[in-house]
Amino acid sequence: MNGAESLVRTLIDSGVDTCFTNPGTSEMHFVAALDKVPGMRSVLGLFEGVVTGAADGYARMAEKPAATLLHCGPGLANGIANLHNARKAGTPVVNIVGDHATWHVTYDAPLTADVEGLAAPVSRWVKTSKSSRDVAKDGAAAVAASRSYPGCVASLILPGDTAWETADGVAPRVQDCAIPEPDQLAIEAAVQRLKNGKRTAILLGGETLREQPLLIAAQISQTTGATLLAPTANARMTRGAGIVPVESVPYPVEQALAFLAEYEQIITVCAKAPVAFFAYPDKPSSLLPESCSVFEVASTEQNGVSALKKLSLLLDVDTAVDVVVHDLPPVPTEDRINPEVINAVVANRMPQNAIVIDEAITGGRSLQALTAGAAKHDLLQIVGGSIGIGPPLAVGAAVACPDRKVLALQADGSAMYTIQALWTQAREELDVTTIIYANRAYAILQHELNNVGAETGKVAENMMRLDMPTLDFVSIARGMGVPGEKVNTAEELDRAVKKGLASKGPYLIEACY
Amino acid sequence: MNGAESLVRTLIDSGVDTCFTNPGTSEMHFVAALDKVPGMRSVLGLFEGVVTGAADGYARMAEKPAATLLHCGPGLANGIANLHNARKAGTPVVNIVGDHATWHVTYDAPLTADVEGLAAPVSRWVKTSKSSRDVAKDGAAAVAASRSYPGCVASLILPGDTAWETADGVAPRVQDCAIPEPDQLAIEAAVQRLKNGKRTAILLGGETLREQPLLIAAQISQTTGATLLAPTANARMTRGAGIVPVESVPYPVEQALAFLAEYEQIITVCAKAPVAFFAYPDKPSSLLPESCSVFEVASTEQNGVSALKKLSLLLDVDTAVDVVVHDLPPVPTEDRINPEVINAVVANRMPQNAIVIDEAITGGRSLQALTAGAAKHDLLQIVGGSIGIGPPLAVGAAVACPDRKVLALQADGSAMYTIQALWTQAREELDVTTIIYANRAYAILQHELNNVGAETGKVAENMMRLDMPTLDFVSIARGMGVPGEKVNTAEELDRAVKKGLASKGPYLIEACY
Repeated sequence: MNGAESLVRTLIDSGVDTCFTNPGTSEMHFVAALDKVPGMRSVLGLFEGVVTGAADGYARMAEKPAATLLHCGPGLANGIANLHNARKAGTPVVNIVGDHATWHVTYDAPLTADVEGLAAPVSRWVKTSKSSRDVAKDGAAAVAASRSYPGCVASLILPGDTAWETADGVAPRVQDCAIPEPDQLAIEAAVQRLKNGKRTAILLGGETLREQPLLIAAQISQTTGATLLAPTANARMTRGAGIVPVESVPYPVEQALAFLAEYEQIITVCAKAPVAFFAYPDKPSSLLPESCSVFEVASTEQNGVSALKKLSLLLDVDTAVDVVVHDLPPVPTEDRINPEVINAVVANRMPQNAIVIDEAITGGRSLQALTAGAAKHDLLQIVGGSIGIGPPLAVGAAVACPDRKVLALQADGSAMYTIQALWTQAREELDVTTIIYANRAYAILQHELNNVGAETGKVAENMMRLDMPTLDFVSIARGMGVPGEKVNTAEELDRAVKKGLASKGPYLIEACY
Repeated sequence: MNGAESLVRTLIDSGVDTCFTNPGTSEMHFVAALDKVPGMRSVLGLFEGVVTGAADGYARMAEKPAATLLHCGPGLANGIANLHNARKAGTPVVNIVGDHATWHVTYDAPLTADVEGLAAPVSRWVKTSKSSRDVAKDGAAAVAASRSYPGCVASLILPGDTAWETADGVAPRVQDCAIPEPDQLAIEAAVQRLKNGKRTAILLGGETLREQPLLIAAQISQTTGATLLAPTANARMTRGAGIVPVESVPYPVEQALAFLAEYEQIITVCAKAPVAFFAYPDKPSSLLPESCSVFEVASTEQNGVSALKKLSLLLDVDTAVDVVVHDLPPVPTEDRINPEVINAVVANRMPQNAIVIDEAITGGRSLQALTAGAAKHDLLQIVGGSIGIGPPLAVGAAVACPDRKVLALQADGSAMYTIQALWTQAREELDVTTIIYANRAYAILQHELNNVGAETGKVAENMMRLDMPTLDFVSIARGMGVPGEKVNTAEELDRAVKKGLASKGPYLIEACY
């Protein structure tokens, strides 16, 4: 058995059975091992940003890491933006990067690059295997590292010779570290704070935004009067009819400041105190009123679900919770499409247990309000702010959950960073319906101009417009094997969404406005 | 005047008048300054790899740097692969990366990343501006740094507040350092070696691969009997009828070893001794025979043209050179297309003074032999080995040379990494004819399998095939505003190439085989 085979077998034994890849020559032994070893699903991406974003989407839904397989420093570089997003989302990724054979690096061949240097900014764990006999145990360590709570990018660099030379065999799975418990004193202090009569919000992040923990949070809220809030963007949040609703902090800085202005204290559970996405002249970086105190019950690396349970016990909460029932918006009938029209259609046609990818950017701002009463779904968002996550995230989520419909809500400008993901959706026959919010602009930049105080003219405006020429997403999608259609009215949109959701496999709807 | 305006004015005063950009919120003041300050052409890319690859292509042809404008760490990350290529090609790039305001970084907002850490592996010069009063002089320093011979990536990181706060004014242009002259002793030693009777090759790189230096090299060759060779891939090489022909070292390792086996000594001028692109089990990393000596007359950072002139003087060369005349291959008439058919059509239809982009990968292996007798052209290749450079390189070359036809020879797999460049070609009405070598595979990986000694089965083969589903490049191009057609025979191809070359503006031909 060579190093590559020892690694693939070790990954499988460690619970990693899916590999998103865009391999090159230096990864051929790893690829060859995929044939020898049954049990690893390999999914090809035409661009590395697809690969890493898919690994993120997969792990968010599968609740275990996928492996990537990337080619040398530049291949890794192409995957960094979505690894950044995974890092910020706390997603486990076993990020495997093939490289030149150990002895070849000194020759400074064209693809020679500082792979560790490129991996470091997005990885919590980086290691270059030194020999084929180390690869298996390095792989097991990488899996364990990626699973350190809540999850991180563990980058394992695999020189060619460590893949093709002889290995000692498979390495045993490394036991996961226990999820760190919150500090008991912090729990007790939080209980006191929740009783102090101040206007309080509980900011819930990470795994506390799932169905069961939200129920506990609702009990706490009902008992104490604290409001439940969520960060602006979340890796995964269960929502819809029957689920305890939680409002997210708005993205626009003025709205966020107004939204949070009433609170005297914030209790955080697996969430960081809210900060502005960008800095603006004469606006604060913290979104909280100056007088508002912040108290952390559980950090993003501690067990927030356990924290909620402990809080509820100490608070002796009433377990009977009335979950607020939100109405569905009417099915839109407008002649023209706008984001509210799209989001209302989505709300009405949401399949039960759908996975909703939200990279609609400005188009998504009304999404959560309009879909609060939609069928139960999981919402996956862009936590790291690096656009171009949506199409790959949909790939990964669909691979992880073949029995659930993926509904990808996608801004047009953002889609173009990783549009190659559509090909993987077609190749793997993934059950993804994509709606393109086709406003033909980097609308968020147009919105942000006032905030940053910049005055623009024609040249600048031209840098925010995507209408010269107009992108034709239906043609692009067709070129990658994904069928679709363009719609211009609410009625056409509603019909197209129903058609996409009724079909099995990828479908793209370009909603023009 | 704010920092952004001081920077734009300084860039223009320093000779940088073209900016390839994919900006975000933190870059809005820079973008706004583009309206206030006349003289900077701004070209939008839909993905940062397009931006950086275009900056590379521009500088190769304009012989001066362009600026980029990228958005925070993840935006930079998306541009790194083509910055790697620029670094390896010795291309000057003034790489400007906007970032959070200085005081905002500590809040760890979603887009916060280690920008300097990401820039370092591809940059020879990295600086984060500390205040708006530093931005202009930092900009002038970045331009000068990028022009340090032969050219490099100089990354200037621009926190938001350094752009929007008050500046002191424009900074004066920093004088370029003189191009380092080769060592006189090295010249004299090389003359002795060129007279020692050994079988000798002169390996020419960098600017020595242009028309005039090649003529001097030919005089040296004629006088000494040394063979002129070029590295496997070159940033820019003038070729075709009337130009001294130089054979390039082949890419496949076995062919390269055979090609170089006869030489007893290699004299390098702005080129590094040839090494294998990848390491392979039981194959050497150096491509030279063990007994072959290497002697460097000028390093890649020294004036090779001057070295050739000095050599020619000391050798008292005969200045009358018969430039070998190569025949054109016959115009192909095959029913099926293959790379040789495409390259023979290219040879016959080559417009005078064309810029040829070669990212045909395996499809390009017969290109140089078949086009040796074609009309005079400049050949731009992928020096850093990171695929996905072709479509952006074509953008940059076409922006630099609006009066020259760009002929982009493009492998299908590689095209998909930066296919978004087609939109910029349409938007800017760039005169680029692209031929897709549509073999529906990562053929280079299929070729390399034997070399790395990996045995593959169906799973692995599936990772190298691009035919499930088949990419339809004509549909993808149309979706981005570029017209085109698909061809299946030599005759159709020839007609399409003539049509594309006769039109003004972008055109894409998918040559299927």
